[in-house]
Amino acid sequence: MDAESFFSNNIKAALKNSPPGEWMPNIPENCIRLNSGYPAPELVPDQELKAAVALLLDEERDLPLHYLGSPRIDKLKEQIQDRLAERGMRVSKEELLITSGACQAIDLVARILLDEEAVVAMEAPTYMEALEIFKNYTDHYISIPVDEQGLQTDLLEKELAERKQNGLALPRFLYTIPTFQNPTGTTLTADRRKHLLELASSYNFLIIEDDAYGELAFNESPETLKSMDKEGRVLHIGSLSKVVAPGMRIGWVAAARDFITAQWWFKKDLDHPFAHSTMATFLENIDFEERLEMLRRTYREKCAAMLSALQAIMPTSVTWFVPEGGYFAWVRIPGVDTAEMLAEAMAEGVAYIPGKHFFLDQAEGKEYLRLSFSYAEEKEIVEGIRKLAKIVGNLAK
Amino acid sequence: MDAESFFSNNIKAALKNSPPGEWMPNIPENCIRLNSGYPAPELVPDQELKAAVALLLDEERDLPLHYLGSPRIDKLKEQIQDRLAERGMRVSKEELLITSGACQAIDLVARILLDEEAVVAMEAPTYMEALEIFKNYTDHYISIPVDEQGLQTDLLEKELAERKQNGLALPRFLYTIPTFQNPTGTTLTADRRKHLLELASSYNFLIIEDDAYGELAFNESPETLKSMDKEGRVLHIGSLSKVVAPGMRIGWVAAARDFITAQWWFKKDLDHPFAHSTMATFLENIDFEERLEMLRRTYREKCAAMLSALQAIMPTSVTWFVPEGGYFAWVRIPGVDTAEMLAEAMAEGVAYIPGKHFFLDQAEGKEYLRLSFSYAEEKEIVEGIRKLAKIVGNLAK
Repeated sequence: MDAESFFSNNIKAALKNSPPGEWMPNIPENCIRLNSGYPAPELVPDQELKAAVALLLDEERDLPLHYLGSPRIDKLKEQIQDRLAERGMRVSKEELLITSGACQAIDLVARILLDEEAVVAMEAPTYMEALEIFKNYTDHYISIPVDEQGLQTDLLEKELAERKQNGLALPRFLYTIPTFQNPTGTTLTADRRKHLLELASSYNFLIIEDDAYGELAFNESPETLKSMDKEGRVLHIGSLSKVVAPGMRIGWVAAARDFITAQWWFKKDLDHPFAHSTMATFLENIDFEERLEMLRRTYREKCAAMLSALQAIMPTSVTWFVPEGGYFAWVRIPGVDTAEMLAEAMAEGVAYIPGKHFFLDQAEGKEYLRLSFSYAEEKEIVEGIRKLAKIVGNLAK
Repeated sequence: MDAESFFSNNIKAALKNSPPGEWMPNIPENCIRLNSGYPAPELVPDQELKAAVALLLDEERDLPLHYLGSPRIDKLKEQIQDRLAERGMRVSKEELLITSGACQAIDLVARILLDEEAVVAMEAPTYMEALEIFKNYTDHYISIPVDEQGLQTDLLEKELAERKQNGLALPRFLYTIPTFQNPTGTTLTADRRKHLLELASSYNFLIIEDDAYGELAFNESPETLKSMDKEGRVLHIGSLSKVVAPGMRIGWVAAARDFITAQWWFKKDLDHPFAHSTMATFLENIDFEERLEMLRRTYREKCAAMLSALQAIMPTSVTWFVPEGGYFAWVRIPGVDTAEMLAEAMAEGVAYIPGKHFFLDQAEGKEYLRLSFSYAEEKEIVEGIRKLAKIVGNLAK
């Protein structure tokens, strides 16, 4: 028996391209976790979710525990429609698919839009899980750098024009996190948003807008690409992972009806009635705007603590982007290999994610690292930066 | 903008083959639901699950609500390993993947094993969702009839021998529900199990053993194909949907390590920490053997009530298989189109699933229907059979 010989040809190709690769090492128990893209423990509403489950099961008994039957499954969809409407996106029920987090949404989008000939345009750096997902479908990528104003749409335009002139395939879609990007924390400016939509129209590609952090503005959330889109080119992906809890696995895609129908057809885990109806009950019983306000304030303060510490403690050669929301700060340490530095950092008691993990061409990420200000406490954040600064200082000697 | 033009070629083909098709009509509120393959409401442990959530969140607070971190996520895997071991299947952690129900397990198996050239062997009739899933990958099927002893392995052998002789492709796998099959309720005999494994070895195909009902024996559960398998040819799929609650979406695949690794790679909804750790807490705090004993006794009694009613009330031309476990009875009404009869049945206040939905060639299912004794109460079951008998009697006039 040789398992390999039973794998389908597509899978043989995908496995060859994507061996379950090297990833983060195990992080010691007492490390300050500036690596974790998790909400802060005290912001996870565990007691409210406990109360929601109690209320739900007392009211509905077995209904949320069958495949179908809980009226709150539809309710969750309406609640998400309402949240989208708050941000200028009016979508019908047929234009919205609830998924198990943003990851499943990205996978379903890839499933319907990609084949092995397809070209995907991405930001450099970008969300590493998205990269892993796309690699299951195609080997063809265009990678466009991000600066402090987000995706460099002028470089995208140049690349598209060249490809067109040389008769090369144009991308089927661009995957972008335009708002409080993972990992850079940057936000695409209004002008660039407009430019990007124009390019999508002229060069006939779709835009996958991953908006996982979009509600977590320190001040105001920018207009989404989806709300600016007049041509149905934007597939908008969202999630409650960052504003409620990732373990509930609630995400979605909002897009033109045909895209949603096709994705629904390939979504074979069925629905998640218990998780969905629990979330609906939770949302019914809290003031979501108030919760968001609290989250924004807290993350703003944590981010400010991180940036002040960087400013105060790091050698002047070290630079970073200033986030306006989200979970992350993106730091450059010139002349340092951040992947090599990680072992020493963890020995000192602080963890981060080396930049290379966010690039298609990992060499590009060598001097960068992603710091998360979401999970650790302010005091820990400052202490973590101090530890990093010490290592960087020693390396510079 | 034309959505169709953006779909990948694979998806265009799949959507052409599998338009979201005609399915069951809406079932009126007060209908007796002999259609529902759901556990009985009073057997769904809603209060125990409520208590499990309370205990879990009080003990672990935010941990089960992050992506990772709850020790009970690993615990659930061990609990499932223990249940498999009870039934003679010793599998390591690397040979077990937890999925969102059996459906996601079937989809992941298809994902790694099928391409558009692949041939799938199936039972006729079979689980309709499996059929829908496979249609997303291939158009090539072999369909082998089931009788009261399960899959007719002699007919399978004949088909395989003919295909080999004629130089036709052999199946990559056979999908079977050998124990308390959906929809027929039949169980593959020990001799046929042995024969099937021999055929898999001689003709070099894999076996997907869907064991969703395997623990629900009225007397004793038969040996699984997986536990009899000496060559690693069986991918065993199980679920807690029928013995705990479908809405929790907990299923699994147990198989050789390479198959599990490949499936893991394509499972992009990540894990479901809240659902998994809730289930682990629930399982910690109940006597599962006692629960199973209670379920078996209850379904045995409900099944007996259904069969007695069929025997007592139905015209003698109507026949059925006698289930030894599971949720379903499979009934033949000679000369009647059960799909046509459904509207009248629902008008009378009883619903079932017409046989055609369980066949690749729907014409084969015309005279059959699936009755579920799992969901309705005994009194309702008898009343439902009475309603059906009245309609069948009238049709015979």
